[in-house]
Amino acid sequence: MEELFQQRVKSARKNIKEQNCQAGLFTSWANVNYLTGFRGDDSWVMVSPRQVFLLTDSRYTEQAERECFGCKIVSRKGSMIEAVGSLIKRYKSVNNIAVQRDMPYGASQDIEYKFGVQLHPIESVVSSVRAIKDEAEIANIRKAVNISGKVLKFALAELKPGITESEFAGLIEYQMRKHSAGRAFTTIACFGAGGSEPHHIPGKRKLRKNDYVLIDYGASWKGYCSDITRSFAVGRAGEEYRRAYETVKLAQKAAIDMIAPGVKMADADKAARKVIKDSGFDVYGHGTGHGFGLDIHEQPRLSGKSLDIFTPGHVITVEPGIYLSGKFGIRLEDDILVTENGREILSRGEKSPELEIVKF
Amino acid sequence: MEELFQQRVKSARKNIKEQNCQAGLFTSWANVNYLTGFRGDDSWVMVSPRQVFLLTDSRYTEQAERECFGCKIVSRKGSMIEAVGSLIKRYKSVNNIAVQRDMPYGASQDIEYKFGVQLHPIESVVSSVRAIKDEAEIANIRKAVNISGKVLKFALAELKPGITESEFAGLIEYQMRKHSAGRAFTTIACFGAGGSEPHHIPGKRKLRKNDYVLIDYGASWKGYCSDITRSFAVGRAGEEYRRAYETVKLAQKAAIDMIAPGVKMADADKAARKVIKDSGFDVYGHGTGHGFGLDIHEQPRLSGKSLDIFTPGHVITVEPGIYLSGKFGIRLEDDILVTENGREILSRGEKSPELEIVKF
Repeated sequence: MEELFQQRVKSARKNIKEQNCQAGLFTSWANVNYLTGFRGDDSWVMVSPRQVFLLTDSRYTEQAERECFGCKIVSRKGSMIEAVGSLIKRYKSVNNIAVQRDMPYGASQDIEYKFGVQLHPIESVVSSVRAIKDEAEIANIRKAVNISGKVLKFALAELKPGITESEFAGLIEYQMRKHSAGRAFTTIACFGAGGSEPHHIPGKRKLRKNDYVLIDYGASWKGYCSDITRSFAVGRAGEEYRRAYETVKLAQKAAIDMIAPGVKMADADKAARKVIKDSGFDVYGHGTGHGFGLDIHEQPRLSGKSLDIFTPGHVITVEPGIYLSGKFGIRLEDDILVTENGREILSRGEKSPELEIVKF
Repeated sequence: MEELFQQRVKSARKNIKEQNCQAGLFTSWANVNYLTGFRGDDSWVMVSPRQVFLLTDSRYTEQAERECFGCKIVSRKGSMIEAVGSLIKRYKSVNNIAVQRDMPYGASQDIEYKFGVQLHPIESVVSSVRAIKDEAEIANIRKAVNISGKVLKFALAELKPGITESEFAGLIEYQMRKHSAGRAFTTIACFGAGGSEPHHIPGKRKLRKNDYVLIDYGASWKGYCSDITRSFAVGRAGEEYRRAYETVKLAQKAAIDMIAPGVKMADADKAARKVIKDSGFDVYGHGTGHGFGLDIHEQPRLSGKSLDIFTPGHVITVEPGIYLSGKFGIRLEDDILVTENGREILSRGEKSPELEIVKF
């Protein structure tokens, strides 16, 4: 296990050096976890040329000793800024430090002014490493996807007319907890026309006897996400719904079929959109997919503007949709691992509006 | 309703001016919601001397039109940075802009370099206004607290030996969803010695026939939080547990009894700690309480180092605890509104280890 973290740190160090920085400071939960294995909050990581420091406090010292691999644990008594400062003072050769773009601005100013260093927001230093998942990460994502499948099966058994969107979302999240998992993001459950709004918030709308359902949900296992969307009819599915459903399914297949090392992501995006355009439906306004792992949105991007190329170890969603305002929304989202020879669909399960029609 | 938002913006503008800035840029969900009423994501607010701009995109335009009060909605096509830039260009007199300390560093650099302005991370510009809740906010907090009470009642009925911490946390959150509420933060549920760890993550530990339970949870209603902790024995409570429980209860009462306009928060903190110290137990390492509202941690701070003074409209937690490593943890946390004449305990309910002992 320690070797795994050494490899991650080595890759980050290479990128830090290429950016003419002497150290890297990482402030998000995901990057801290990725570089050290630590799963607690309120902690930062400093990568110097020879060492990795976890800056934490007494609440987390024991946990850090259990969880961290190959890094020095600094149990700070003062503020985080002071703890960063005393490391900087120790390394006289450190003048330029790579940081995350989303590092808090106030803290970055304090560090620059107080300790005479320059911070450089260079996202790719760690995110480009994280885009390619290693075996340990893939195992955790598999588990998160696997739990998502079980969760849905149980939740569907409770999907009865009268249940609200909010309660159904709650049932899905409760099932995740029953599997000792967390949620990767706030579960989206839409009934009826709600599914056509790109950012519908689950509310008091009750399920009707004949209705359309869209759920976008994911479990989190050891910090690693899954991200699944299912759409289906409860009761009777109308002709338009069936036609749209089949179109989304074909669009998703068109994109997935193109996934193989060396293929441009923009081309897979184009393939999915073409199916929908050719069918006469409006083409969706969002991306076709995105990488995920410790964060629910990571590199790479599966979109028309993306310059990314499918590479073994990428884990991405493929999620085209058709949204008919005031009627329904259909999106199908699966989780795909790019392999040496092509792809592996991690989230299995046949999909059809008939198969998924829930009968009472 | 519009008047309410005008008042909030007016207070923010006064603070922006006092900091020698000509505008304010607010990037967090909570500040955006506070200043405009908007409940969507991925949107920023710019407060100029004469107008308030919500910078959002086509996904949210309709929602913004429904939810926003007295602000101009800018539906950006390009990046957020470009949208900020075109506003800056429109206001030639804007050179210094107050921003949040937690604004993303990368974005702040882009804005400074591209548009020739200086950004100043001054947290208090909005947070000092938000520390004093207005009537609409207090109503939402009351509702969130009220839901928390109902949620606990239902969840306790399901607390049976064999249930895991994770599942019990899930049950509590499911009940929130049943009330069409969200969770204010990830529910903490600890059985047995887990309660003595300050940051226990609910796991596979099962409830035993005689056991100790600590739950720290809160609902979210229209974005406003509640924050409650209950500790109790299931089955038989040992003598040490009972004694510690009564001590925490007295410590909490000592702090709450001091809450009145004009009193120093540091003094209330001291009063709670004194009760625990005098009883011979170790004094807790965390603060005695904190403000909350749209965020779960806001100004003011109820701690030994706090310079804050109780003021009508403050809503704070009071949450002393006793933690016996390897045995149990007891924390009692209630939500208090500071009133003109003293205080109102928003989260009612008699507490005693006997009362709360759950019998099977």
